[in-house]
Amino acid sequence: MKVVKGFPADPEGTYQLKVINLMKHAIRNFARQEIVSRKMDGTLFRYTYGESYERMQRLANALQSIGIKVGDRVGVLAWNHHQHYEIYFGLPGTGAVMVSLNLRLTPQDLSYVVNHSGTKYIIVDEDLINVAESIAPLCKKLKGYIIITEKDLSEIITQLKPVYSYEKLLSKALAVYNWPNLDENSAYAACYTTGTTGKPKGVYYSHRNVYIQAMMFAAQLPMSLNDVVFQLVPMFHVLGWSKPQAATYAGAKLIFSGRWNLDDLEELTDVMVQEKVTVSGAVPAVFMAMLEFIRKMENKPDLSGTRLICGGSEPPIALMRGFWEECGGEIIHSYGSTEAMAITTLNFFKPWLKKELSEDNLWNLKKKQGTIVSGLDVKIVDEHGDELPHDGKLSGEILLRGPWITRSYYNAPETKENFTEDGFFKSGDAGSLDSEGYLKITDRIKDVIKSGGEWISSIDMENALVSHPVVLEAAVVGIPHPKWDERPLVLIVLREGCESTSKDEIREHLSKVFAKWQLPNEILFVDSIPRTSVGKLNKKAIRMEYKNLYIKNQK
Amino acid sequence: MKVVKGFPADPEGTYQLKVINLMKHAIRNFARQEIVSRKMDGTLFRYTYGESYERMQRLANALQSIGIKVGDRVGVLAWNHHQHYEIYFGLPGTGAVMVSLNLRLTPQDLSYVVNHSGTKYIIVDEDLINVAESIAPLCKKLKGYIIITEKDLSEIITQLKPVYSYEKLLSKALAVYNWPNLDENSAYAACYTTGTTGKPKGVYYSHRNVYIQAMMFAAQLPMSLNDVVFQLVPMFHVLGWSKPQAATYAGAKLIFSGRWNLDDLEELTDVMVQEKVTVSGAVPAVFMAMLEFIRKMENKPDLSGTRLICGGSEPPIALMRGFWEECGGEIIHSYGSTEAMAITTLNFFKPWLKKELSEDNLWNLKKKQGTIVSGLDVKIVDEHGDELPHDGKLSGEILLRGPWITRSYYNAPETKENFTEDGFFKSGDAGSLDSEGYLKITDRIKDVIKSGGEWISSIDMENALVSHPVVLEAAVVGIPHPKWDERPLVLIVLREGCESTSKDEIREHLSKVFAKWQLPNEILFVDSIPRTSVGKLNKKAIRMEYKNLYIKNQK
Repeated sequence: MKVVKGFPADPEGTYQLKVINLMKHAIRNFARQEIVSRKMDGTLFRYTYGESYERMQRLANALQSIGIKVGDRVGVLAWNHHQHYEIYFGLPGTGAVMVSLNLRLTPQDLSYVVNHSGTKYIIVDEDLINVAESIAPLCKKLKGYIIITEKDLSEIITQLKPVYSYEKLLSKALAVYNWPNLDENSAYAACYTTGTTGKPKGVYYSHRNVYIQAMMFAAQLPMSLNDVVFQLVPMFHVLGWSKPQAATYAGAKLIFSGRWNLDDLEELTDVMVQEKVTVSGAVPAVFMAMLEFIRKMENKPDLSGTRLICGGSEPPIALMRGFWEECGGEIIHSYGSTEAMAITTLNFFKPWLKKELSEDNLWNLKKKQGTIVSGLDVKIVDEHGDELPHDGKLSGEILLRGPWITRSYYNAPETKENFTEDGFFKSGDAGSLDSEGYLKITDRIKDVIKSGGEWISSIDMENALVSHPVVLEAAVVGIPHPKWDERPLVLIVLREGCESTSKDEIREHLSKVFAKWQLPNEILFVDSIPRTSVGKLNKKAIRMEYKNLYIKNQK
Repeated sequence: MKVVKGFPADPEGTYQLKVINLMKHAIRNFARQEIVSRKMDGTLFRYTYGESYERMQRLANALQSIGIKVGDRVGVLAWNHHQHYEIYFGLPGTGAVMVSLNLRLTPQDLSYVVNHSGTKYIIVDEDLINVAESIAPLCKKLKGYIIITEKDLSEIITQLKPVYSYEKLLSKALAVYNWPNLDENSAYAACYTTGTTGKPKGVYYSHRNVYIQAMMFAAQLPMSLNDVVFQLVPMFHVLGWSKPQAATYAGAKLIFSGRWNLDDLEELTDVMVQEKVTVSGAVPAVFMAMLEFIRKMENKPDLSGTRLICGGSEPPIALMRGFWEECGGEIIHSYGSTEAMAITTLNFFKPWLKKELSEDNLWNLKKKQGTIVSGLDVKIVDEHGDELPHDGKLSGEILLRGPWITRSYYNAPETKENFTEDGFFKSGDAGSLDSEGYLKITDRIKDVIKSGGEWISSIDMENALVSHPVVLEAAVVGIPHPKWDERPLVLIVLREGCESTSKDEIREHLSKVFAKWQLPNEILFVDSIPRTSVGKLNKKAIRMEYKNLYIKNQK
């Protein structure tokens, strides 16, 4: 995209936006602000921004001492804790690139990420050593491993080598480091995105990308030094949805969740209440479980003013109303992707809509993905790439462009098909924008069912299906049809004891929300639905398996 | 300053930060937000962001229609109103440069600014035509004038030519404009700074400078779409202290004050109360007068949550307490300069200081300039350029560097002495930073009195003097002394009826706050004190006039 040069403002060049500055400036003003980190045994470790920054400088010196240089890639395989936070700043501050390793990937995918990125070292949590061991034989260029542990290395039995102790390296290093004046377009971190097909694709975020997004998030949420930010989103997921960086910019108190799964949510809810959390983020399932614990509490906590960023999928109204009515907490729907660095929308009410809309309509509005945050360009385009009006009805592919949205995959041919020449990322999501700017995602473009020139949302139908009490899981795909191009097919896993449910019962349930022509031609009761390695419905596999169903049947 | 290139993040280049995007993205989400503009007759004009943006596009087309191109400089000589706001975006959006013309400059200085910047056109308010006429004969390269008026051009008698009508140009222009993809380092606007010596010096702000500062201000104040921002600071002063841009980023309601002087403050206070203003900015004298009106109101307004940015000089505690106690409004001290785009500090309390400090100490803390906002680097250096510790005691020159701080004057030899090689602006202000990061300005470096190796703040002494009831005005300068290098000299204008005051009375008053060795050697009662064209104490002239006083007297 052509750039027009105007009158030159400053011949002396520009000041570079480096992520380490978020921390440097924070400690100038907020050195005494607290950071809390939940340890493996559930106890809480506490220190300050000032103490953390000292360890970041030690880390930078330590990395240099083992030979890590500007531009080197270093993998991180770790839970949410204060050391991971130190790595967020101390590692890229040296000019090296932090490669976020998703500990839930298969060894095949994970080793692909390590090899494709040219990762030289991996920093790994003690209890994730087995994950590192599973890929070590596949990654010949790895030079070493830094283990985050409170133990002495001699107590740790591993096939990895050479190994260093994170704490030992830090204790031997100097506590002062002179950060290089990095070009802001240098890579800060790499996150690999895993689809249902093909190899993981590398998205490399620059220091500039991360810096500007941190400012945006702090401004638009907003966050201040009076906030308490609970880091629940795994920090290996799209930079932990940007909260550690934005909180640092704002000087907010930070709480790291430690290692957790759904069984720990009662304990984490207690932490949230005890530490008076005001900002957090998670997927709906996590907040749903937390709400259940809050419902059971005898003394309801006061979470008024607390903003819970909810992404990944649409938060149900019951969840949003539940938090609001039980304890005054507000769920804020947000939408994003790896390529767009997670935060592209936030759902806030506008003062005039609060006056104009009924309560029910406001809750419905809250289910939408929200308005595109200032800073980003957006387009909704039809199949020919032509822009659609913002009428809240017409649905097309969502294209995004802006100061933190990537314009390419690293060393991957998929760049050509996923990015436009004028710098837009083709999200692969279908949706509409209304006249107030609220985005509503209707489906993945590839999962939209195109029937006789009209679109049917597979996600809307799945949501309707799982709202029926007999349905445990459901998948809806479009499969080829000789007359209508595609027609919907429904797969359902019934709950135990509900095996006698009829297809007509399901069809009748759907007809409450869907027009007759949208109803599925076939409903199949199955024992299980194919899923991808990260647990998403594998619609590609379903479409493949049933591709001839309507052609054969002529339904 | 050397820039280190790391691993390249995105070979496709970066998305340019253009100021017009603040508006484009605002109207996507906040098109219905209101903008209010006080007209010459005191009535309030109201329209929306959406309507304003349409006029910005018309303006861009209109400017193009009279031949203004990318890189051209266009002067603006106008009060605070919605047309000025339209110009803030519509003019630089085309790639032209907005040259802010301070209507209080002498014709000599103003014509220097126009000629030095190469300004081609001037957009001028009808009631400022006389100012434009006073410089027209001195500015041979001016090609034309655009007059902001509700009248028909035929009703306006002026020597300026050719003249265009702002409204007429807009009405004839198309309401859709395709903004160029400007290089973010292109100049957005020029502001000229006038010292006590030499010619005005041009500071050229890039689109990037303005964009990043708008985000910072919106984040750190913070501002949101629920705010109502009252534009009191003249928009020809350092981009109106950045509120129009930050408010637009946030989607806040905007109110423009129109033409005003101190006599209008009762009316403006009413506007503030009626429109439920939550953010404004001004110098202490303005807020002082507003407070007086509020004190007299029978029904005190509720300004709780309102943040009043106070710059230019130190706000007295009486002012801050007054607003707080009368109506809950908070005065926030801020510090800046033209070169630093005004906002470099903001004075907020930290949660821990609120717990630890007594009420009196908190009010005293609030008088300080505040903490350096995140994004900026700061150094306090001694006469040799060596950095001083942040102990709240040692005072030195304040050096600033960051994403919106200029690194040079346009085409001026003063660049060499006012900027360091590693990109710091030498502010010329003397001050100290305490361990919590609060900045305290003690003096202008050139006004500091250096007596026997110690520093005496002329400003502190002036503040102490004017707090005495008999003193109308006071100036303190250091003048050469054979033994102590410099010693303080005090000039005082006494209030009417206080002519019998003795020097000893003044000296005794000072000795309550100052050590004996700091007291002035001489106190002179004078009829008036020399001031510069912009009304500041002309200390240079005073020092010149009395340079031999202590050498002769051997005091």
